[in-house]
This record gives sequence, structure tokens and C-alpha cells, in this order.
Amino acid sequence: MGNEENVGKIIDYSGRQFKQIGTRVVRPDGVEKVTGKANFGADFKANGMIYARTVRSPHAHAKIKKINVDKALKLKGVKAVVTGADFPEIDVNDKAVGEVVVSYYDMAHNTIARDKVYYDGHVVAAVAATSADIAEQAARLIEVEYEVLKPVMTAEAALKKNAPVLHKHLFTQGVEPKPDKPSNLAARSQFKLGDIEAGFGQADVVVERTYTTQTVHQGYIEPHACVASITADGMVNVWCSSQGQFMVRAYVAKICGIEISKVKVTPAEIGGGFGGKTVIYLEPLAVALAKKAGRPVKMVMTRDEVLRATGPTSGGSARVKLGAKRDGTIVAGDMELTYEAGAYPGSPVMLGCMTGFAPYDIKNINAVGWDVVVNRPKAAAYRAPGAPVAAFAVESAVDELAEQLGMDPLELRLKNAAVEGTQAPYGVKFGPIGYKETLEAAKNSPQWKAPLGPNQGRGIASGFWFNIGGTSSAEVMVNEDGTVIVATGNPDIGGSRASMALMAAEVLGIPYERIKPLVADTESVPYSMLTGGSRVTFATGKAVIEAAQDAVNDLRRRAAKIWDVDLEQVEWQDGQAVCIESDKHKPLTIANIAAKADKTGGAISGKANINATGAGPGFGTHICDVEVDPETGHVTVLRYTAIQDVGKAIHPSYVEGQLQGGAVQGIGWALNEEYVYSDDGRLLNTGFLDYRIPVASDLPMIDTVLVEVPNPGHPFGVRGVGETPIVPPLAAVANAVSHAIGKRCADLPLSPVRLLSIIDGK
Amino acid sequence: MGNEENVGKIIDYSGRQFKQIGTRVVRPDGVEKVTGKANFGADFKANGMIYARTVRSPHAHAKIKKINVDKALKLKGVKAVVTGADFPEIDVNDKAVGEVVVSYYDMAHNTIARDKVYYDGHVVAAVAATSADIAEQAARLIEVEYEVLKPVMTAEAALKKNAPVLHKHLFTQGVEPKPDKPSNLAARSQFKLGDIEAGFGQADVVVERTYTTQTVHQGYIEPHACVASITADGMVNVWCSSQGQFMVRAYVAKICGIEISKVKVTPAEIGGGFGGKTVIYLEPLAVALAKKAGRPVKMVMTRDEVLRATGPTSGGSARVKLGAKRDGTIVAGDMELTYEAGAYPGSPVMLGCMTGFAPYDIKNINAVGWDVVVNRPKAAAYRAPGAPVAAFAVESAVDELAEQLGMDPLELRLKNAAVEGTQAPYGVKFGPIGYKETLEAAKNSPQWKAPLGPNQGRGIASGFWFNIGGTSSAEVMVNEDGTVIVATGNPDIGGSRASMALMAAEVLGIPYERIKPLVADTESVPYSMLTGGSRVTFATGKAVIEAAQDAVNDLRRRAAKIWDVDLEQVEWQDGQAVCIESDKHKPLTIANIAAKADKTGGAISGKANINATGAGPGFGTHICDVEVDPETGHVTVLRYTAIQDVGKAIHPSYVEGQLQGGAVQGIGWALNEEYVYSDDGRLLNTGFLDYRIPVASDLPMIDTVLVEVPNPGHPFGVRGVGETPIVPPLAAVANAVSHAIGKRCADLPLSPVRLLSIIDGK
Repeated sequence: MGNEENVGKIIDYSGRQFKQIGTRVVRPDGVEKVTGKANFGADFKANGMIYARTVRSPHAHAKIKKINVDKALKLKGVKAVVTGADFPEIDVNDKAVGEVVVSYYDMAHNTIARDKVYYDGHVVAAVAATSADIAEQAARLIEVEYEVLKPVMTAEAALKKNAPVLHKHLFTQGVEPKPDKPSNLAARSQFKLGDIEAGFGQADVVVERTYTTQTVHQGYIEPHACVASITADGMVNVWCSSQGQFMVRAYVAKICGIEISKVKVTPAEIGGGFGGKTVIYLEPLAVALAKKAGRPVKMVMTRDEVLRATGPTSGGSARVKLGAKRDGTIVAGDMELTYEAGAYPGSPVMLGCMTGFAPYDIKNINAVGWDVVVNRPKAAAYRAPGAPVAAFAVESAVDELAEQLGMDPLELRLKNAAVEGTQAPYGVKFGPIGYKETLEAAKNSPQWKAPLGPNQGRGIASGFWFNIGGTSSAEVMVNEDGTVIVATGNPDIGGSRASMALMAAEVLGIPYERIKPLVADTESVPYSMLTGGSRVTFATGKAVIEAAQDAVNDLRRRAAKIWDVDLEQVEWQDGQAVCIESDKHKPLTIANIAAKADKTGGAISGKANINATGAGPGFGTHICDVEVDPETGHVTVLRYTAIQDVGKAIHPSYVEGQLQGGAVQGIGWALNEEYVYSDDGRLLNTGFLDYRIPVASDLPMIDTVLVEVPNPGHPFGVRGVGETPIVPPLAAVANAVSHAIGKRCADLPLSPVRLLSIIDGK
Repeated sequence: MGNEENVGKIIDYSGRQFKQIGTRVVRPDGVEKVTGKANFGADFKANGMIYARTVRSPHAHAKIKKINVDKALKLKGVKAVVTGADFPEIDVNDKAVGEVVVSYYDMAHNTIARDKVYYDGHVVAAVAATSADIAEQAARLIEVEYEVLKPVMTAEAALKKNAPVLHKHLFTQGVEPKPDKPSNLAARSQFKLGDIEAGFGQADVVVERTYTTQTVHQGYIEPHACVASITADGMVNVWCSSQGQFMVRAYVAKICGIEISKVKVTPAEIGGGFGGKTVIYLEPLAVALAKKAGRPVKMVMTRDEVLRATGPTSGGSARVKLGAKRDGTIVAGDMELTYEAGAYPGSPVMLGCMTGFAPYDIKNINAVGWDVVVNRPKAAAYRAPGAPVAAFAVESAVDELAEQLGMDPLELRLKNAAVEGTQAPYGVKFGPIGYKETLEAAKNSPQWKAPLGPNQGRGIASGFWFNIGGTSSAEVMVNEDGTVIVATGNPDIGGSRASMALMAAEVLGIPYERIKPLVADTESVPYSMLTGGSRVTFATGKAVIEAAQDAVNDLRRRAAKIWDVDLEQVEWQDGQAVCIESDKHKPLTIANIAAKADKTGGAISGKANINATGAGPGFGTHICDVEVDPETGHVTVLRYTAIQDVGKAIHPSYVEGQLQGGAVQGIGWALNEEYVYSDDGRLLNTGFLDYRIPVASDLPMIDTVLVEVPNPGHPFGVRGVGETPIVPPLAAVANAVSHAIGKRCADLPLSPVRLLSIIDGK
């Protein structure tokens, strides 16, 4: 299982030496998490707490005629019921300003339906009672009268003439002339480079095919959960698992109509998010119930609710056409993506258009995306949102092109790889990037050279993700004994506590173990954008580095005061203040200086509130070996290597974990996962027995190679690493299976049933 | 009941105009507190929490021969037992550096006894079990074998030759030559001014008398309580009620031998402290038990434990001699104070020596203090520690001197009152102070002019307290919607949330209601010294003002960026950025600027870590009218006016509350409260039925007059106000009773039994 010599391989292109960065230190929250003692979303308790359950629509599309809550309210132990009428109305054009664009109208209506329900599982009411059982019983006593409407379950159905229109206010964005009728086509987006027709005119070989994928869920193990309370003085407290305590605060304030200062959100540990916890579902319901009941309210979703009404990411279709010269130069790329947004606009189709061709230096590109609403749960972000489906299509097409050209697919990629200076299809020129380096690493990997047996196939595929920066804040506080607290406002999803502490340790020059990294609540650090976009180690890390430097300057000032010398005479070397112009002053350690903090002006600390720019793009290349059982259609992943340019791995083990985790989620997407709906739009596979994500026994060890081409936009060279790893696997697996069976696999998932039908040529 | 026209009277000497400072806004935590919903020390719960009880010595003085915990450990449900042996030994000379000097050795041994017990109620072991009942049962199964020693219960007994010596390592400090034998006399302190003998040589009239007071308790309603947990990764969490979360953190870290960064303390609301919660008792026990049990541990004291083993303040005797010229000029003051420190050194006798004569401009002063250990609980701070007993003696002596001189006692005080420039007996010259102004206000008060009936008497007395500054930190965070969070590290004892928000509102120019003041945990703001020394509104307020100014500068920078103008062109006026050199830019509100924070560089916030200097001394004058029932000895307080120079009342209602509360505690001290011990040193009155603090029905409304002579050391003129009000009442009451019965009352409390014996001349 796996290749020991390859696990943990790091190829460093920086030549920089660090003292603590890059070491594999023990995380400060590890034992608590693996023993289940850490507090996750469902683990909070409050005095006098009661429990709430939701009433959800059994229909995919219906008008709500009437809700009768009388019987529920009469049940002993029931303390409050809320429906959509208990929430403030929000203007249909009210969108979030700031770094993430969201429609508050859609968010509010998705949280709890008003006049219509748009999908199976859409919340119509919530009830709080002294026990979860009573709340469940009360939920069943709430009578909802529906006028059932015909649902549209796929983009194809939604775009048909005479298809039922979900939203009367929805007019297609991005088309000319502006439409005069509402439709289910929410938006069109397009990215162009060069002259696409001229490009295909130069081509000797052209491949074109349409690829499809199904709705899949992020599959986080921890269901959404929260506790909310509100004091008689109007102060709201929310404890919950999310990808951003400040995100939850802003959304709760908006949907409940409360000032931000009156809402405090304490982040729980998070049992997986992958983008699916960048939105909220339960929190406004819990706040409204708490207000009515005068008691703290706990809400925990069942897995059934998670699958019916949270996440997922869009299913979609992708038509890709590539043209190349005989020598392998790709001269034109055309792509048309159609993604299902779910019940409200906002599929990641635009991101698919931007990313699909990004690994390649193609002069002529045309990418068009269609965002379509259907009667499924509203799509949420899922790891590199939009990119995996586009990459599945493009990387399959590149594989097919290599076949047509008779070229090695790795060599074809090397020939066309984007490098520093390449014009990306989304309007920027790449700075220093390490895509080619990942291909070289793949070429040199043991897996690439290993022989294959019968019914086995090898696939290679690459992937790109932007990675982002954004607003982050950090505080570095020096305690009286010289130990240090590093507070940031981002939930620790991939080991960021350890990464933040390592970066602070590097700057301060004190051992990692003396630093306590902290995931602070919304009242303990200034605003930070959520944990997403592979931004935390980059952007929040940058804030930590600046805050640590600010603290170092404060420490230098104190030393100068103790010695009565000019600040310029004090340098910070290896965790000590050193007086450079006089040897009469013995160096002062951080503990020496901290012990005298009160005498030199008060507590010692540093802070940094930044909007981090300079995020470095991430490229990865994955190799997958499979064996297909031609009798059953079962695919066994034999071996898998994930290679990625990570800029600089602050804590290599957690970076490797990201590569492994992304690969595994992509393998699940490729082989097994899909939403199965009944004809009338009810989700049929609402549990992990029927919605099958890969488990450890399904998989080999995922080998990794970390390529470190430093990102000049970060002091230590960091690039985001969390999302890129889910971009290549769909195509890597599909290419491997295609080679194993000798037929192109263009429709995912490659479940036994579908694969047998491909093998059988149906 | 009270005089409506006088309640809330404010005499302003500053002439400054404020927009929000000085208004009586609604506190943000009021309803929660009065309805009991706020979380106090005993209100925390943690998952898997167990409960602990202590085993306490029934002896006042004994050697511990053996502790057998076997039976307790065998009881079903018992999870852990700790004794002194479970804690690290601490060097006898290990004292806290920093702003407060404490002996860690004494603190550790006071927390849990090692070889000896020093008072009735001294902890010898603690046991944690799945219920408090089981823990109580287990505590009774712990067998402690004592060798009982003779206790010394009073300073007099402790100083006798051949008295049992408590501590073998205790050699008297502050005497020459240094003693060669240990004794119960812990320290001598002395403060001198001029030539005391020459001073008395000028005197026409001399009064001299010895006054005594008994041990009294702070009498906070909330018993000590905490929950402690420790993760498998070694992270300690403590939730508790205290006067300082950072104090608890430092002490727990020290006594348990843990790095400060690994201890997080979350402050509960505090149900009274008055100095008695500036030390810790339960927290290290809970941490040690949590570590052994692997479960969170809750500990809550009974009232019996509170009275036997926490607090109190020293009983003491005070010999005072005053000499004056015929015209009333006081020319000499001599004082000798002897205070009982309890089981470990550290009575506030030095502070008594420094404060007793401070209200007067006396050229020749000698004040000597003796700190004596006895087998009572270790004295803790109690509101203006040491001052009330000294003031009781001095202010009684001034009253007696007025009688001898045939002068009005108010006029005698006015004649000798300290003013700006007066040399204080503790080594400083006073800056601007408002003592005379309090006397003028007293003279003009309705009470001073009101007639008295038979068996009635009126007393007047003054008092002084230093007030302190010290280390405080504050953070002002501007939220995305322009609301603001003000975070500080001091528990809200007297309404400081409202005061901090008012000061920030004044600087920011936005309404108080848009600001959320926050009592932050130890990981959310840098270190702040505890809530004590009447320092919070002054020192932490100063930090809040500086942090708000820092935030204003950040807001100006953002406005300059939005407008693309130089920072100097942006002024902050009434909560808005105004461009002074161009009228093309419309003023930007804080909400306008906050909405664009991400585009202008990240979150907006300000911080200030300071060591506040310039605290202004506080002087008060109280008038008390009583009626004595000569048959029963019962004293009824008929009317009471408390007048004080408060510098500037940020929130007048809370300042008035401080004056009223201090007066009431002083009345209790004067009339009823005292520790009653059996001959063998067991406390007999261990509940509020027998240890009688005044309740509302015992008292008239306490009228207040706030004199505002601004303190130049604070931007808004604030002086500390919390402690001064307990300094005058002992003498004010005693002088009133003395006048009512026509005999000098020099021994407190003036309980019916004692008063009858004075009336009867016994």
C-alpha cells in the first residue's frame, strides 16, 4: 500500500533555510480531536438549553398555501415555533458588499421558505421544545398545506421551453439584449483569448466531446450544528461549526435584522467543511427560536437533512473542443459549461470557465458558462468550486488529443504547459508558477515508470486553482512569562493552528512549543474573511507574520527602554534583543523583556489587519493506476500519486494531508458519488450507505510530492494548497479507467452499473 | 427615606462639556444580571463535568501527620483526590514580580496545606466525584491525622513571649538589628514627616486614645466558584468569578507549574469581590483534580467555607495621638497600628500608616505599623485595604479634638484640610484634589443643617484613598456595519462595561448604543492588571480612550485612501471623516468607511497597551445621623450623606452606587460585623444569619453628592471612586453614636451588646 520512499518527498526550488518552517511539529489540538474530546458544533451546552427540529418540504417545488402551528404549540414542552413570517423581509436586490458576493434575499429564503419551496428538504418551519424528541413530535404536528408544482430537476429540463419557472424575478444576467421574461437561466459568462476560429483554423487535429457529472456533496462528517441564545439585553450568542465565525456573524445579523455588534459567534472545531460551511442554515432559525422562547436553542442536523438541504456542488455538462498542430502545440480551446445552481442562482460555472484551460499556454480560447436554476438544494462552494468539472472535461480531452497525436500525455502537457509570463484565460499573466515542475516530478516518479498488468490503466491529469488572499487579522500577545498567544479569526480546518504558530515562531525566534495558536471568536480579533479559497496559510499567515514583526518591534522598544539606548541600536536575533553598539548590555530574551513589561509601558503585543494580495496560483498533476473488473464493473485504485506546487510547505504533513484528502474526494466524485432523485424530485439516497464516499479500505495510500516554487507574494513563499488537489482526480481516474477498458469514459460517476454499460457499449 | 433633592447632586468644577460622558445610559448587562440569567462563577457547565469538595482543617493550628485517602478513592463515583503533595514545591522566597507583590510560597500553601494547617478551614485535600454528594461523602472518608498545636488568635497573643510561632522561616522585616529568631511579628513599617516631638511641643491641646476593630469579611454575595478542565494536549481552561482573569491565569500557572500560554481563563460575571477576589483558592485544586480525573471539575464554596477560609480583612488596634494649637491648627499626629495578617504575612497595615493622616496638612507626623500573623484566614484586600481602620482612629480623634477645642468638627477639618501642594505623609505632594470641596459640600448639605431629636447624634468623618493606575490593554474593533466592539481585560464590577462604552463613544462620536463593551478572556486582549485599586475607569478607561483614538486614526487613513487625499486633510468630527481642504468629498460616517474596510487595507481597529500613570487621589466626607435605643443598645441609621471628589463621573449612577455601597459596608463594619472565634480557634459565626451584614431594610437611602475636581492625569478628569467611600463610615457612625450617647466609642463593632456596655460604663 503506497510507496514509502515517495511519501513525503519535497522538491525545493527556493534554496532558503528556515529554522522551524517546514518541520513536522506536533499539532496542539491533535489528541483532543482524535479522541473526540474537542468541542465540535454539537458539543456545546448552555444553561436552560432547549432543542429544535425543522419541518421540511417533502416536495421539490410547491406553493405554501397555509401553515398551521396550533397543534404543535399545544404539545407539552414546546416553547416556540417559527416560520418564514417571523423573519424580516429582505429586498430582492440586497447583496453582500465585501469580498464575497451573496444575495441576502436568496440566503434568507433558502434558510426558511416564505411563499414557495424550491427543493425536497427546504425548511418551512422550526420548533423548539424541552427535548429533541418533543421537538420532533411537534414538527410532525405542524400542518403545511402545499400547492404542488412540477419540478425541474436537471439543467436540460429547466431550459426547455414551457419549463416551470422557479423565480418570477429571475432574468438572465450577461446576455444581450436583456430578456423580457423570467427564466431558469440565471446567467451567462464568457472568457475569451485570441481568435478561436482562427485558432481552430491552424489545427491539424481536433477532438471534441461532451462530458457530464452529477450533483455531489462535500461529504463532511460533521452535520451542521449550533446553539444560539439571546439575552434579555438583546445580546446574541451563537456557537457553531463553520468555515468562518465572522461570516456566520454577518449573515445571522442580516437575516435576523440585528446589528453586528450584538452578535457574538464562537467557532467550534469543524468536522469538515470543504466549502459547504461557507454558508449558514440553522443559525438564524436557532436565534429566532431563542428569542421567542427566551432560552438557548440547540439545533443539529441529521445526515438526511445534510444531504437533502445543504451543500452540494453542481452537476453539470461540459462540451470541450481542442485543436492542435501535428507537433502537439495546442492552438485552440473551446468550452461550453452548463452547471445546475440548485434552487437559487450561483453555480460556480464562471470559475469553471476561468480555470479549465489555465494549465496551458493556448493562444485562442473561448469559454462560455451557463448558470441554471433547478429544484435541487442551492449549490454551495465545494473545494475549488467549478474547477473539477471543467478540468475533468479539458484533461480528458487532452488525453484524447494525446492518443490522436500518438504522443505521451505527459509530454503533451509539458509541451503546452503554462509558465511564468503565460497569459491565463481569465485575464492575468502568470507570475512564477510551478506547473512544469509538477510534470517533471511526475515524469520522475516511481509510479510513472511502473509496469501495468491486464485490465489495468494509468491516467494522468493536471489542475489549476487561483488561491485567494483577502482580509485577515492577527494578534500576537506576549505573556508575562515570555510565552506567546497567536490569535486569528479563522477556523482550523487543515492544521492551521500549527502553521500559524510555526510562522510566528520563525519570526519571533522562540520554540514553537512556547506559542499557543488560537482560533478566536468574533469579539477577540478584528474581522477575518472565512476559511476558504485556500487562503488561510497564505493570507492569515501573512497577517501573523506581520503581527509577529510588530510584536518584535515592541520587544525591541522595551529592550531599548530597559537599556536606555536608541531603538536603532536594538536588533532582534534568535529570540533575543541584542544591543549592537555596546557589549555592556547582555542580550535580553523574550522572557526577560516580558517580565518587565509593566515597567516599560504595559502589555507587549503586535497586531496586523491586512487585505492580503499576491496569492500564488496552485498547479497539480496526479497519476492514477486502476484495475477494472470487467465482470462487475468495479474499479480498484491501485496506486495514486498527487504532485503539487505548494510554494512552501509550512508544515509538510498537513500539506500532504490536503493533497491526499483532495485526491480521495476527487476519486469518490469520479467513481461513486451522485445524487439520485425520484421522478417527482425527492432525494432517494439520503445517507452514507446509499451516498457512498470512499473510505480507507477502498483506497491505497496516496503518495505525494511537494514541489516548492516560492510565491513571491508571501514572505515565506506560501501558496494556497487546499483546493488544487481536487481538480485533477476526476480526469486522472477517468483517463486511467478509459485506458484500462479501451473506451473513453465521459460520464461520471464511473460506478459499476455505468461502467458495465460503457464496457458493453450501451 | 433619603432626600430626593440631594440624590444625584453633582458639583462640577471642570466647566467642560461632554456629549455622552456623564449621561445615565442603560447598562448592556442589566436585565441579565437582575434576572439572574447572567453567568456567574457557579453557572458554567462543561461536557463530562464532575464535582469536587474540599477537606478542611477543623483545627486553627496543627501539624499534619498523615493523610489517608484510600477509603475515599474506593467510593463509587470518586474520580480523583489531591493533597498538597500533588503540587510542585515553591521556594519560600518566590515572590511575584510586577505590579502586585505576592508570595507564591504562601499562596501555594494557603491553597492547600502541606506539613501544617494554620487556621480553621485550611484546605488539606480535595476530592472529585461524579456528583457533589458523592464528593462530600468522599471528603468525609479522607482521614487526616493531626498533631494539634496551640493557636494564637489575636495580635496580642501572637506577640507574647513564648507564644507559639507559626512559621519557622518568618523573621521580622523592617527592624534593626535583624532578628535572629523567627516570630509572629512579620514586619514593621513607618512613615514620618517633620519632627513629631517638636510638633507636640507646639500643641495646646492633645488627645490620645486606642481604637480597636475586629476581623470582618468582604461579604460578597457570590461564593467562590470555578470550573477547570485540561485537554489531553495540556491546555488548561478555567472559568471563574474573580477580580482579574489575568491574575487567576498567572497564579494558576505558578501554583500548578504550567506555562502561562497553556492556561486560558474566562471571566464569569462577578457577584461582588471588594478585594476578596484578588486572590485564588479553588482554581489550582480544580486544575489538579481535572488533570488526575481527565474530566472537567467544578468547585463551588459553601458560605461556611467562604467565611472560614477566604477574605477577610484584618482586625486591628490603632493608637492615635493628635496635638493642636488653640486656633485649631493640628501640629502633630502620631499613630501606631497593629493589624492581624491572618495565617501568612501581609496585612494592609502599611497602607493604614500611609492613609490615616492624608486628609490633613499636618507638618509633623509619625506613623508606625506592625504586621502580625495569627491563626486566622490570611487577610485579603478589602476595599481601600488598611485605610478604614486608620481613618476610624484618626477621624474619631479629630472629632474628640474638636470637642476639646470647642470647635465645629467640620470647621476643624476645613481649617486643616489638605489641598493642592500639601505634603502627604507617604512622600508625595498632592496635585489638584477636591477634599476641601467635599467639606464645603457637606456644610451646604441639607443633612448638615437638619435638627436632631433626643437620643440622636450626628457624626462627620472624612477619608482618603490613593487610587492606582497600572497596566491595562484595550482593543476597539470596528465591525463591517460600523458598530464597534470595545474589549478590555477587566471584570465588570461596578458598571465598567457602560463606562468603557461611554468613553469610546465620546472619542468615536457615535451613539453609545452602537458600541458593545466586552469583558474579554485572557486570550482575547493583552494582559491587564486586575480590577482593584479603583483603577478600572481610570486606567483601563485611559487605554480605551487611546485605543479609540487609534481606531479614529485608522478610520481617517481609510477615508484618505477612499478620497485619495493626504491624511492631514482628514479630520474626525462627530463620528464622521471630514475633508477639510475640499468640499467635493461628502463626509464619510463610520459605517460608510467600515463597509469599504476590505478595499482599504483590511479590518479597522485600534489598540492600546498602557501602564497608566497619573491616578488622582480620592477624598470623601460622610455625614451620619443615628438614633440609639438606650434600652436595647440598637442603633438606627436615620440619614446618611456620602460626598466625594470623583474627578469626573463617567456614568453618575454607577459612581453614586459606589458611594452608597461603600457607605453601607462601612456601616456594617461599624455596627455589626465581626468574626467570633471559640477559645480553640474555631469560627463560630459561619453564616449570614450570625455574621450580619446590613440589608436594605436596615438602612435609609444613602444620599450622595459628587464633587468633580478633574484629575489632570486622565483625559476626561476621572479619579478612581470605588474604595474611598468605605474609609469615612466607621468614624462617621462611631462619632454619631458617641454624640448620641455622650460617650466616646472606640471599639467596633457597636453591636447592641457592646454599646450597652459602653452606655453602662463597663
